[in-house]
Amino acid sequence: MKILILGMDGYIGWSLALKQLALGNQVCGVDNYSRRKTVEEVGSWSAIPILPMEQRLKLLREIYDGKIIFYEGNLVDSQFTNDVVRKFQPDAIVHLAEQPSAPYSMIDQEHMIYTQSNNVTGTLNVIWAMKEYVPKAHLVKLGTMGEYSYGSDMDIAEGFYEMEFRGKKAIVPYPRMAGSWYHWSKVHDSNNIMFACKLWNLSSTDIMQGIVYGTRIKEIDNENLHTRFDFDELFGTAINRFCAQAVIGHPLTVHGKGGQTRGFLALEDSVQCITLLLDNPPEMGEYRVVNQFDEQYMVRELAQRVKRIGDKKGLNINIHNVENPRVEKEEHYYKADHEKLKKLGFKATRLIDEEISIMLDDLMVHRDRIKAKEEAIRQMIKWTGGNGLRQSIPNPLLMPHN
Amino acid sequence: MKILILGMDGYIGWSLALKQLALGNQVCGVDNYSRRKTVEEVGSWSAIPILPMEQRLKLLREIYDGKIIFYEGNLVDSQFTNDVVRKFQPDAIVHLAEQPSAPYSMIDQEHMIYTQSNNVTGTLNVIWAMKEYVPKAHLVKLGTMGEYSYGSDMDIAEGFYEMEFRGKKAIVPYPRMAGSWYHWSKVHDSNNIMFACKLWNLSSTDIMQGIVYGTRIKEIDNENLHTRFDFDELFGTAINRFCAQAVIGHPLTVHGKGGQTRGFLALEDSVQCITLLLDNPPEMGEYRVVNQFDEQYMVRELAQRVKRIGDKKGLNINIHNVENPRVEKEEHYYKADHEKLKKLGFKATRLIDEEISIMLDDLMVHRDRIKAKEEAIRQMIKWTGGNGLRQSIPNPLLMPHN
Repeated sequence: MKILILGMDGYIGWSLALKQLALGNQVCGVDNYSRRKTVEEVGSWSAIPILPMEQRLKLLREIYDGKIIFYEGNLVDSQFTNDVVRKFQPDAIVHLAEQPSAPYSMIDQEHMIYTQSNNVTGTLNVIWAMKEYVPKAHLVKLGTMGEYSYGSDMDIAEGFYEMEFRGKKAIVPYPRMAGSWYHWSKVHDSNNIMFACKLWNLSSTDIMQGIVYGTRIKEIDNENLHTRFDFDELFGTAINRFCAQAVIGHPLTVHGKGGQTRGFLALEDSVQCITLLLDNPPEMGEYRVVNQFDEQYMVRELAQRVKRIGDKKGLNINIHNVENPRVEKEEHYYKADHEKLKKLGFKATRLIDEEISIMLDDLMVHRDRIKAKEEAIRQMIKWTGGNGLRQSIPNPLLMPHN
Repeated sequence: MKILILGMDGYIGWSLALKQLALGNQVCGVDNYSRRKTVEEVGSWSAIPILPMEQRLKLLREIYDGKIIFYEGNLVDSQFTNDVVRKFQPDAIVHLAEQPSAPYSMIDQEHMIYTQSNNVTGTLNVIWAMKEYVPKAHLVKLGTMGEYSYGSDMDIAEGFYEMEFRGKKAIVPYPRMAGSWYHWSKVHDSNNIMFACKLWNLSSTDIMQGIVYGTRIKEIDNENLHTRFDFDELFGTAINRFCAQAVIGHPLTVHGKGGQTRGFLALEDSVQCITLLLDNPPEMGEYRVVNQFDEQYMVRELAQRVKRIGDKKGLNINIHNVENPRVEKEEHYYKADHEKLKKLGFKATRLIDEEISIMLDDLMVHRDRIKAKEEAIRQMIKWTGGNGLRQSIPNPLLMPHN
């Protein structure tokens, strides 16, 4: 199978590339290195050092027999996107190439506009290029569980549900009610992709993914093959950030009461799920939605888990409840369906406590790198405004788009 | 009241400006003349000639006492939008400044991207500027009835409805299922505005408007005060296009069977509704949705009406059923609620047959102008692709945005 990975330099993108190469698939990757640049913009870097793409690719050529093609470029550039899709002729496109941080999208007007414009335009270019050059390919698009509402007292369906209105029934998308400009950009993408499937008979899987944690997948068996690991307040997510805080003796910062419940998934299992979806594409014209996570946890539970496991390793961990910068409920009902991937054969392969233990060990080695960017753990982006980054570096990616 | 009209050079924008001035309100207008440019791009122009903005404004200063301020600029430019809102300090912002044509958005990749990027970015800038400079103002945003699904067998609610899932209930947005990139851009806007109201406690009315027809409002009592009138296949809508075709002896072109049902509204009544909404703003933090139309008609019925009225005037009108370029059902159930404006006091003031008669008379005078652009009536933009404009003029508005 020929797989085009958009956002191959990212946390999941790089891991997925390794997995697909190991499986013997032909991989082509695209990235504009936006993640490296935006993380630098907010004063941080990957806790685990990662090599420049060229060196990574050279190493992969030595290890795997599979062909690796890489294009540096921006999906917002229509010509670039068209060219890549036309030349590579993928059987499947995995689209992971978006601005992925909710707090980043909430910094100010510029970052709000950049996030929505970048994500929506990039995705439109991808579906147009598919329609033009590979109309039978399968688009696997990374959405987020955050497209659904948090904090209602209702179960969350898997993509669609049966509505009833004045005695008539219809299958419709389960209501989306996102909580940041970033999350709404993903909803806009979902709507656009759903329409493209209907209009052009394309086939797509839209992944409503939970929060991914972990430093490794099986194929990361060489320190030069590591994928990036973000721990700052903007790009680091719950478990990953707690583990990074733990190894430098920084209190684990829980937003408010920490009663926010979310679905979580180990990196290895995220990659496993995407692989399963690639191996089991939907019908032509089908817009399939899967909810992709393993277990649900409350944020304060996770902090307690990290503390328990870390304390055993001799770390002396404190938990701090900090003022919640977000507009969200801090205690709420949460129960989301996630059956479709299980029906395709998904079984979680990682236990959270073991994974946290591995993460703490991996991060301990890079304690100095985390310590050096400690300030990036502390900056808070307030949902109600009045933000400003410590350094007012203009986002290098706010480039004109054509 | 201080009213900022975004898109003041447009069909409804100009009419609304006249009405608001006549009512003694202070009006500030913004436009980048995109409608003049895009209509030229597709080989057409306004059937009724309109003056350059400066001459229009000079004339208005002579007739009305009200203060008129006008800024030429693009809402996609954050700095421009912020400056206008900060300087004028409006009590209400009426946002009509979007790329408004479904066929235009379906021409090709470039026009798809332009439509969504222009509309979403402009609206984001408007709500950001409101939050920053006039958080108590009322945003009246023009959406479209086309945000809802056509062709389901279900009634359409007015914005929201009560969903039920596994025994629990919640008020949620009525499902949106648009049929073009343009219509989806309006859905994205609606979602973004709904979020902004919740996040920043803004107050907004989102108008799901039907198709507007007519050449006049009461205040257009001078030929130099006319508003634009589009009749080409891309920017002209059902009744208006039929009337223009009728006066030049061109067959009325009905898409497919013409069984598409839509809600319609006279220009006078559209302006009346917006005025009612301005006079009756929602609560702070409220996101109000109204369905704004008067009567529902089937497209082929409308063609027959135009034929009947035109034939009486001595026009010998034919109706042609042409291949439908759109992906849509040509016969379907359609029943949409529209009670909220009636509760605010809306009563339609125009009868459709009388309005068609006035339109035919007004357009007869400009028969030569319509005849000169007859080709623009015939070009069809196919929803499934393979389009190309006759002239490959690059859209002058596809400018870099910051």
